[in-house]
Amino acid sequence: MRQGRLFVISGPSGAGKGTICSELLKDGSLALSVSMTTRAPRGKEVEGVNYYFVSREEFQKTIDEGGLLEWAEIYGNRYGTPKAPVLEKLNAGKDVILEIEMQGALQVKANYPKSILIFVLPPSLSELRKRLIARGTETAAQIDMRTRTTIDEIKKIKDYSYFIVNDDLQTAVNDARTIINAEHLRVEDQAEAIIEKYEREGI
Amino acid sequence: MRQGRLFVISGPSGAGKGTICSELLKDGSLALSVSMTTRAPRGKEVEGVNYYFVSREEFQKTIDEGGLLEWAEIYGNRYGTPKAPVLEKLNAGKDVILEIEMQGALQVKANYPKSILIFVLPPSLSELRKRLIARGTETAAQIDMRTRTTIDEIKKIKDYSYFIVNDDLQTAVNDARTIINAEHLRVEDQAEAIIEKYEREGI
Repeated sequence: MRQGRLFVISGPSGAGKGTICSELLKDGSLALSVSMTTRAPRGKEVEGVNYYFVSREEFQKTIDEGGLLEWAEIYGNRYGTPKAPVLEKLNAGKDVILEIEMQGALQVKANYPKSILIFVLPPSLSELRKRLIARGTETAAQIDMRTRTTIDEIKKIKDYSYFIVNDDLQTAVNDARTIINAEHLRVEDQAEAIIEKYEREGI
Repeated sequence: MRQGRLFVISGPSGAGKGTICSELLKDGSLALSVSMTTRAPRGKEVEGVNYYFVSREEFQKTIDEGGLLEWAEIYGNRYGTPKAPVLEKLNAGKDVILEIEMQGALQVKANYPKSILIFVLPPSLSELRKRLIARGTETAAQIDMRTRTTIDEIKKIKDYSYFIVNDDLQTAVNDARTIINAEHLRVEDQAEAIIEKYEREGI
């Protein structure tokens, strides 16, 4: 059975990575990675679906045991990606998507080198600003900051394997599917199995 | 404008790589690499279409000038892949396909590291034998030899980037298209251009 692959999707807020992930998840061929957090559940958030909710002690224990693919502290709360459920899905042949910012993505790559990093880009900075303004949730100063962060991140894009320019959503989703399919045609992970299969057949 | 990529397709005789290449070439989005040879033209072969026909002196001069991506001598005739026309097409944004056996493919990779090596496999050795027998052009001993060569080649498949199992032609052609499209989404070659584009826009 083919091994699942871990796809890590990053990109500036406003690039549309969330929408692309939702589209990819629709046909059930991929699983979304669920984060662990020390913050309290909000509204209708469900344990194991939106997050794994844990105490600060449990979170620290998981870090100490090397049980997180990445983690960060944001405004006093910790967020991380538990390794075990991801590996379980991959071993069951399921592809997993993890949507995370660049720092987290690079931690994941360090802890699981087989992961495939994809960066979603808006077609231009002016388009990114337009989308953020249209969203209306941020001040002009915050939007300036996001634009600057985007430039800084794009300079580090070489750490990624693929980028998708999200000009048209359907094209971007197709690009993501193309990447996922192509990765399953790569030799690296499957050479051993092929050699074995052909040798078993012998002549 | 996007840069073309060089796709090198290898695989045992009977794996169907020729058919896959013909299918890929149909829509005109790819160009086939034309070989240079010292052998005389046969039948309706056309200069610059089937081969570039040259004298042994010209061939040697091209080797000496580093003008071949790969070459080999077969039954006293030399065959090689001229670099200039390939690079010209790539620079014009055209993808190029080169169908060649493994030794040649590895020479191409050494001389043009950006090339992408794809190995086409038959679904099984017994299927490969069946196809070769059905073709009826080879003796039983020749077929045995081909099967042994295939096993030896598959052991070296790790030098390749992708493999395609040709069980169903249409699936195999789609796999090849997926690989070609995904390679154009890779960061490596295009990171510089993207960084430049975004920096030019500035803020």
